[in-house]
Amino acid sequence: MKNIRVVLSHTTHPGNIGAAARAMKTMGLGRLYLINPRLCPDPQATAMAAGADDVLENAVVCRSIDEALQGVVYTVAMTARLRDISLEVKTPREAMPALLQQAAEHPVALLFGTEMSGLTNEEMGKAQLLVNIPANPDFSSLNLAAAVQVMSYELGVAAQNPVPGVPEVRPATHEQVEGFFAHLEKTLFDIGFFTTQNPTRLMQRLRRLYARTRLEQEEVNILRGILSVTTEYNARLGKRYLEEHSDVQKH
Amino acid sequence: MKNIRVVLSHTTHPGNIGAAARAMKTMGLGRLYLINPRLCPDPQATAMAAGADDVLENAVVCRSIDEALQGVVYTVAMTARLRDISLEVKTPREAMPALLQQAAEHPVALLFGTEMSGLTNEEMGKAQLLVNIPANPDFSSLNLAAAVQVMSYELGVAAQNPVPGVPEVRPATHEQVEGFFAHLEKTLFDIGFFTTQNPTRLMQRLRRLYARTRLEQEEVNILRGILSVTTEYNARLGKRYLEEHSDVQKH
Repeated sequence: MKNIRVVLSHTTHPGNIGAAARAMKTMGLGRLYLINPRLCPDPQATAMAAGADDVLENAVVCRSIDEALQGVVYTVAMTARLRDISLEVKTPREAMPALLQQAAEHPVALLFGTEMSGLTNEEMGKAQLLVNIPANPDFSSLNLAAAVQVMSYELGVAAQNPVPGVPEVRPATHEQVEGFFAHLEKTLFDIGFFTTQNPTRLMQRLRRLYARTRLEQEEVNILRGILSVTTEYNARLGKRYLEEHSDVQKH
Repeated sequence: MKNIRVVLSHTTHPGNIGAAARAMKTMGLGRLYLINPRLCPDPQATAMAAGADDVLENAVVCRSIDEALQGVVYTVAMTARLRDISLEVKTPREAMPALLQQAAEHPVALLFGTEMSGLTNEEMGKAQLLVNIPANPDFSSLNLAAAVQVMSYELGVAAQNPVPGVPEVRPATHEQVEGFFAHLEKTLFDIGFFTTQNPTRLMQRLRRLYARTRLEQEEVNILRGILSVTTEYNARLGKRYLEEHSDVQKH
């Protein structure tokens, strides 16, 4: 459970942060990360923590999602929506064993959005899996801390059952994957691919593809190697073109 | 889900009542019963209900647990303790399918105690089954509304799966079972059984026995018939004794 981070993004009400800390501790979770909380520390958070002050005091306040996910190899993002979602969506019961399996070896994260609007598409794009808590279709909005309680509970129940061994792989960390995506996007730009494609939409589709594969570190190295060579090749082509058409103006 | 009552006993914080109403509604539950809440209605309850105002407004405020359980055939009581418990204790996942199965035909109840001390032994004695949410042994106190959320969630998940049919029985209602216990206790007193036994302890053991059997209405009638005859027989014996020993003083 020590490898599992609960990451709360842009939480508005400090009481929810405290109640989330309490919910975590009841199930043996202790690593709380807060991305730009509106108020923290705050007396209301402490009051709602009700004995989980240690979780609250050790909470890591971050300025960006990338900071909160540093070193993480597997991120599960919560969503209340079931439409317009490009990633795979599982139930908590389906998803938690896989999260625990990863957590046996590496840091993993459970990512929760704001009280009003949940996670942004950009934030969800950083996850490998989406989880939806099945709810009343006419009233599906769980309180943030209540959602943390349900997920922590499912983790606790899953932890009671033995987890099958993890194959010997070195999964890429969050920042390695993000580094690859940045490299990929820049390369696609450099080679002029985006002149015919919408960059945002295309990058979302590519993120979805790689989220399914769960990239390993070695694979990231290979893919980035390909990108580097692509850019160099493109640069060489461009240079030769300029040499052969010295009458063409540089731009 | 309409046959399932969530019963909160002597709740201190109105915010918890509101949050519990919200937790219920997210999972399709709507029947809230409140036994002597400290404050209700209260603006904090409404604020925490956050859209589940209808559940809160339709809440039934009761003056006793017997009033709250009227007509109920199966009561599941929550407990944070695992020691000193005489009834069977199950996990939410084990218990909810049985509750749902009963709820297909009859009113059932999920019973929650106070924030500080949970349910009393007397309250737990009114239940047929105890449920404990598995938690961190060093910090096992879930917030009341968080516990309602976990139980409602488990009910919601169980409701997704088909429930096997209920055999054709007419289970006794709460008040029929309580009527039997009152009759039994009085009879045991009348026949002089309690001169050698602690009445409270003995009645707890008898409650445990009958909680396991799940009495049917016809069985309650039979048992109470036996009790009536027992007393009558005893009364006849006493009368004959007095007649045959007219020198003995009445007492």
